[in-house]
Amino acid sequence: MDLLKQKILEEGQVIGDNILKVDSFLNHQMDVELFNEMGKEFKNRFKDTKINKILTIEASGIGIATIVAQHFNNIPVVFAKKISGSNMDKETYTSKVYSFTKDKTYNVNVSKRFINKGDNILIIDDFLANGCAACGLIDVVKQGSGKVSGIGIVIEKGFQIGRSELEKRGARVESLAILDKIEDGKVYFKSQN
Amino acid sequence: MDLLKQKILEEGQVIGDNILKVDSFLNHQMDVELFNEMGKEFKNRFKDTKINKILTIEASGIGIATIVAQHFNNIPVVFAKKISGSNMDKETYTSKVYSFTKDKTYNVNVSKRFINKGDNILIIDDFLANGCAACGLIDVVKQGSGKVSGIGIVIEKGFQIGRSELEKRGARVESLAILDKIEDGKVYFKSQN
Repeated sequence: MDLLKQKILEEGQVIGDNILKVDSFLNHQMDVELFNEMGKEFKNRFKDTKINKILTIEASGIGIATIVAQHFNNIPVVFAKKISGSNMDKETYTSKVYSFTKDKTYNVNVSKRFINKGDNILIIDDFLANGCAACGLIDVVKQGSGKVSGIGIVIEKGFQIGRSELEKRGARVESLAILDKIEDGKVYFKSQN
Repeated sequence: MDLLKQKILEEGQVIGDNILKVDSFLNHQMDVELFNEMGKEFKNRFKDTKINKILTIEASGIGIATIVAQHFNNIPVVFAKKISGSNMDKETYTSKVYSFTKDKTYNVNVSKRFINKGDNILIIDDFLANGCAACGLIDVVKQGSGKVSGIGIVIEKGFQIGRSELEKRGARVESLAILDKIEDGKVYFKSQN
């Protein structure tokens, strides 16, 4: 998706060897107009796929998923919680996720009421690197006897194992921008059809 | 806002003396169509107010704020972070917030790049109870020399001190549904013009 790549080149900041910081438009400040274009693109890529619900994970995925849902006929969006607060159902589907960025393990929790047999779920997230978060979401969908219809990612680090981990689990992955490498503070994209 | 009140009566669950659980449409599963109507209503209430940015707090505020922004000409949305991750700017505006629900204190953090002099900011959140989170956001806006143009709340607990705390700080508060009381497992609304 050219508009996104252009935005990454203009506003993305490379930190160290493989961190791309995009907090001016994706995961701290959010560019709603760009999100809308991303929604159109996800709809285009998944137009022949049965999808009745979107699942994402707090916090950065939520804004994107909500806008994307508008392009899928306003289907409900569920966000998995990392901390189960006092208001959370006792009955949840839970999966352990290891975060490389933060070097710790956390749970993703979804109330059993919101994943059901017959659900065709599109998983949305901002980044795909090692795939741990998305694998946790797949696990949660499967626990609820739902089907993962696809995984929509904004920025994929194509040089990490995320995609192969997800495809190993039978998931179709669509990323709007795939980084081929980050080198000398510069970002290189993989060419996509 | 009648549509919202109806939804609360149909799907809200009262827990204990003053917890209203609305996780089927507001803060775990999200009803995007309803969010859109909420966006229209906020725009209507703040139509004569100068607003160029929306500020909210992770996680539940993000989905609402993102949809609301579409009704304000796609202005940028910034979400304050409770945990400053490794990708976060070192230079942040920070305010301490006490959470009654979780009985602990946390920080709200916003990168200094995203609040500036001249900003007219609409603060959006899902709930207003004691007002601690919103006061933290006001504090952060003021640290950045921005102006709080208003505070848009989905559900206000009218029997708690939140509104008076915010008005004491000079903020205009608009809530789409105000709870007058919760009694015997039932929700009563305050009448609004």
